[in-house]
Amino acid sequence: MPWIPNATDTDGDSLGEFAGRACYQSWSRPNPATATNETYLRHILDVGHHSVLEHSSATFYVDGVSRSLTHELVRHRHLSFSQLSQRYVDESLAEFVMPPALADMPDRNPRLNARDVHLGAREQYRHIVTALTDAGVSRKQAREAARSVLPNGTETKIVVTGNYRAWRHFITLRASAAADAEIRALALEILRQCKILAPNTFQDFTEYTREDGVVVASSNVTTA
Amino acid sequence: MPWIPNATDTDGDSLGEFAGRACYQSWSRPNPATATNETYLRHILDVGHHSVLEHSSATFYVDGVSRSLTHELVRHRHLSFSQLSQRYVDESLAEFVMPPALADMPDRNPRLNARDVHLGAREQYRHIVTALTDAGVSRKQAREAARSVLPNGTETKIVVTGNYRAWRHFITLRASAAADAEIRALALEILRQCKILAPNTFQDFTEYTREDGVVVASSNVTTA
Amino acid sequence: MPWIPNATDTDGDSLGEFAGRACYQSWSRPNPATATNETYLRHILDVGHHSVLEHSSATFYVDGVSRSLTHELVRHRHLSFSQLSQRYVDESLAEFVMPPALADMPDRNPRLNARDVHLGAREQYRHIVTALTDAGVSRKQAREAARSVLPNGTETKIVVTGNYRAWRHFITLRASAAADAEIRALALEILRQCKILAPNTFQDFTEYTREDGVVVASSNVTTA
Amino acid sequence: MPWIPNATDTDGDSLGEFAGRACYQSWSRPNPATATNETYLRHILDVGHHSVLEHSSATFYVDGVSRSLTHELVRHRHLSFSQLSQRYVDESLAEFVMPPALADMPDRNPRLNARDVHLGAREQYRHIVTALTDAGVSRKQAREAARSVLPNGTETKIVVTGNYRAWRHFITLRASAAADAEIRALALEILRQCKILAPNTFQDFTEYTREDGVVVASSNVTTA
Repeated sequence: MPWIPNATDTDGDSLGEFAGRACYQSWSRPNPATATNETYLRHILDVGHHSVLEHSSATFYVDGVSRSLTHELVRHRHLSFSQLSQRYVDESLAEFVMPPALADMPDRNPRLNARDVHLGAREQYRHIVTALTDAGVSRKQAREAARSVLPNGTETKIVVTGNYRAWRHFITLRASAAADAEIRALALEILRQCKILAPNTFQDFTEYTREDGVVVASSNVTTA
Repeated sequence: MPWIPNATDTDGDSLGEFAGRACYQSWSRPNPATATNETYLRHILDVGHHSVLEHSSATFYVDGVSRSLTHELVRHRHLSFSQLSQRYVDESLAEFVMPPALADMPDRNPRLNARDVHLGAREQYRHIVTALTDAGVSRKQAREAARSVLPNGTETKIVVTGNYRAWRHFITLRASAAADAEIRALALEILRQCKILAPNTFQDFTEYTREDGVVVASSNVTTA
Repeated sequence: MPWIPNATDTDGDSLGEFAGRACYQSWSRPNPATATNETYLRHILDVGHHSVLEHSSATFYVDGVSRSLTHELVRHRHLSFSQLSQRYVDESLAEFVMPPALADMPDRNPRLNARDVHLGAREQYRHIVTALTDAGVSRKQAREAARSVLPNGTETKIVVTGNYRAWRHFITLRASAAADAEIRALALEILRQCKILAPNTFQDFTEYTREDGVVVASSNVTTA
Repeated sequence: MPWIPNATDTDGDSLGEFAGRACYQSWSRPNPATATNETYLRHILDVGHHSVLEHSSATFYVDGVSRSLTHELVRHRHLSFSQLSQRYVDESLAEFVMPPALADMPDRNPRLNARDVHLGAREQYRHIVTALTDAGVSRKQAREAARSVLPNGTETKIVVTGNYRAWRHFITLRASAAADAEIRALALEILRQCKILAPNTFQDFTEYTREDGVVVASSNVTTA
């Protein structure tokens, strides 16, 4: 096949075009309207031939996020996950992730409430681990039980991999106004990174600020 | 196709046999060694032709479980889930699920610690919701932020559906000794229910008590 | 939960509503605009909460279709399949599925061409099986090799299961004008069956004839 | 995290170790028995923690294979595919892939039979396309109908991507003695390539010749 990627294409963008051209054996770029990688992938997006975007993938190591967020994140079954295990890892000094609505409060009271809950929970976590291990329970089983008192806001770390089609679906759902504020911030950051990795594959997404001040991203592709 | 299920087969068991016989067009039960539904499905299990078990499914409405458990449960991407949303539902009076290792403690102290954390967290949850809504934040956004203080042990409710192959995989992983104690109890209960729904499809799983007192289930099928 | 399905709901429709109400614990049908199963599921479709439609499924035993069709069908990875095996089943007398464009031809010549190819291929299939088994090759290996001459149009039989969300996706793609004519006919028939099984879950799909005479189905839901 | 891959690790192998260490936050390689990438991944394989192998992937452009093979290949739902479309691409000069059992025959007769079927089918394919386009049918619809006479052995080309866990599953099923001879040869070649890309991730697979002369590969990992 005589087709050679353009020097300006990223690997991720090129692989999508390669896969599309394999379906039609159109290596000679026969259609001037789709002769560049950008216009070719725009066409792929417009006609809904999104399966060709499954061949490239991106992996992120995400930290500083809450377990509320990851409980939603791991529902995306086309992504792959390796997450810090609260059954194995000592969480005595785990951090707390303040949710955006509290972090933005001018009045600090509710933030202090959340911080108090967090510190109190960590203390009881340590007490429970000690009581259980003193009673002969294994360390792993003690942590597994004691984590029950740790709040949703406890920080977790997670390695997440997705192909570009899966990331596009994640961004579509989670960078929208209906999404939880914390996961929306993550989705926007992932979109920014994906636009660096494969600008043409994510060319249809635009980030903007709504009238109510909420920052979101959306696509101008009508086919889903 | 002249094949008719035996009166003693359940629907779930029959559909797996039907699917297997469709592959080989063996409607006349040509092999005496696999002429019954039980022996037919035993053969399917032994030779690893598990895809025929994907045609039947079972749905459970699970309540009384913690969000620690569901965070693990929803990693099973071949199952389907509809879960109580902490962003929408008021959690002021949410229950707490005591983890088995604490529930079994003769010394009640760590249990009391866990209960205290729970009650304190619920109280702060209410304070935060009130403070945020007083500040003009929408009720949904207030709950979304306030849930950050609720503990992992907070009760949740979830509708879970899986085909029998997916349930077999879940049971294999989660009814084993390596699993978290709470989800292991769920896996054992689901196995019991599945054995009622489709005894021949789950015939290879046996529940037993190990020397260390842990109740588990395992399969005598060597092919995975 | 005090919610009871209406007598007029089908099981499939009811389970979707049940799953939706579990997320919001709205068992008392608090919103008059979504108090019936039909309006409730219409709302689910409109807001894109399609995961609640994964709990019900439908299984079809499809015969009289070509292997061209099933090669496309089995790409739908959220469906489950058990298909007649050409490696195990004797195909000496396999039928041929005339593609719609040929079946509709007033001039019978191309149809006869296709029929000739089919009959000739079957004859060579038998010769090859005989030559290989005479040479000591096992029957399964002989059929596996001999099937290489059978045409795409050879009839196959397949058991297909999908949850309603997966079937909706299949119908959206395959009942459209861009689809292959044979699989479009299958998608339309499956839609008709699904509308009997769960009319409210598939309420947004309408079958109609385009100006060019092609029969298609499409949805009036804008969220995908 | 202070962990740095060893210079001798491949990227694919390193990412699996990285993901595993993220779960346990064991960046300092605390266990001497798993301090190297090879021993770490061996442990991952032995304990069945295969989800960490989902973060790396490999893409192959496969040609010279039959549509019999790809009809089986695309059943692997965790792989991703972009395949030459017989609806769009002119197949007048498509090649034929001789199945291994025929290619190995000392007596050339059955091979000649297969070749004759192929050449005859291609000729009828051209007649049908011409007859249909002469009758006003679009070129795409004509090819879609005419492909019905092309044999299973017609050559196709396909871009296939899988993460390492998915490739391991593919190799386990398709490099075994029970697999079709043509797809087994593909599975063996993919294993060889994967052993170059990520030798430690595929360290448990060995290729060997059975007493009956069949070349297969199998794993010495007992957990599936």
